[in-house]
Amino acid sequence: MSNETRDTIFIGKKPLMAYVTSTLIQLANLPTVSIKARGMSIGRAVDVAQIISRKTENAGYKIGDIRIGSETLESNDGKTRNVSTIEIEVKRNVSQ
Amino acid sequence: MSNETRDTIFIGKKPLMAYVTSTLIQLANLPTVSIKARGMSIGRAVDVAQIISRKTENAGYKIGDIRIGSETLESNDGKTRNVSTIEIEVKRNVSQ
Repeated sequence: MSNETRDTIFIGKKPLMAYVTSTLIQLANLPTVSIKARGMSIGRAVDVAQIISRKTENAGYKIGDIRIGSETLESNDGKTRNVSTIEIEVKRNVSQ
Repeated sequence: MSNETRDTIFIGKKPLMAYVTSTLIQLANLPTVSIKARGMSIGRAVDVAQIISRKTENAGYKIGDIRIGSETLESNDGKTRNVSTIEIEVKRNVSQ
């Protein structure tokens, strides 16, 4: 599975540049890749998208649609709580 | 200034519901309010927008455009670093 071409990168606890690299590799094969995160990782998803669009400025990728939402999680004590989510599309700059 | 009608709510370190209340008060007077945050507060901005759209479901406000960006800050030692930003529009649900 790990060698398959996935169109979604989930942001977790790895160093930021690991996700930048993963996203760029997927973008070499796909026109659009979604960066997804929830809760505390949301800020890091924005960082990854910004690093990609800034470093490839005038030359490649741009931010597409951004969606926010929430998911309901059940914690160990049986209570439910809501966690916010974000999905940021990064895509080829078609004007190039 | 604090009694003026502002169309932007900046997310900082206050409890989440303080920003929810501020945003709802502004939305009573304005058709659109922007929730802005940067860095570590980005996840909290998404939380505020989600609480408002969830609690007023079918009845009032929805998420509009979402924009991400970055700002360059100069730290005390004179180095510059980039910080990610987010801006989330919340607006009246015009289909009501």
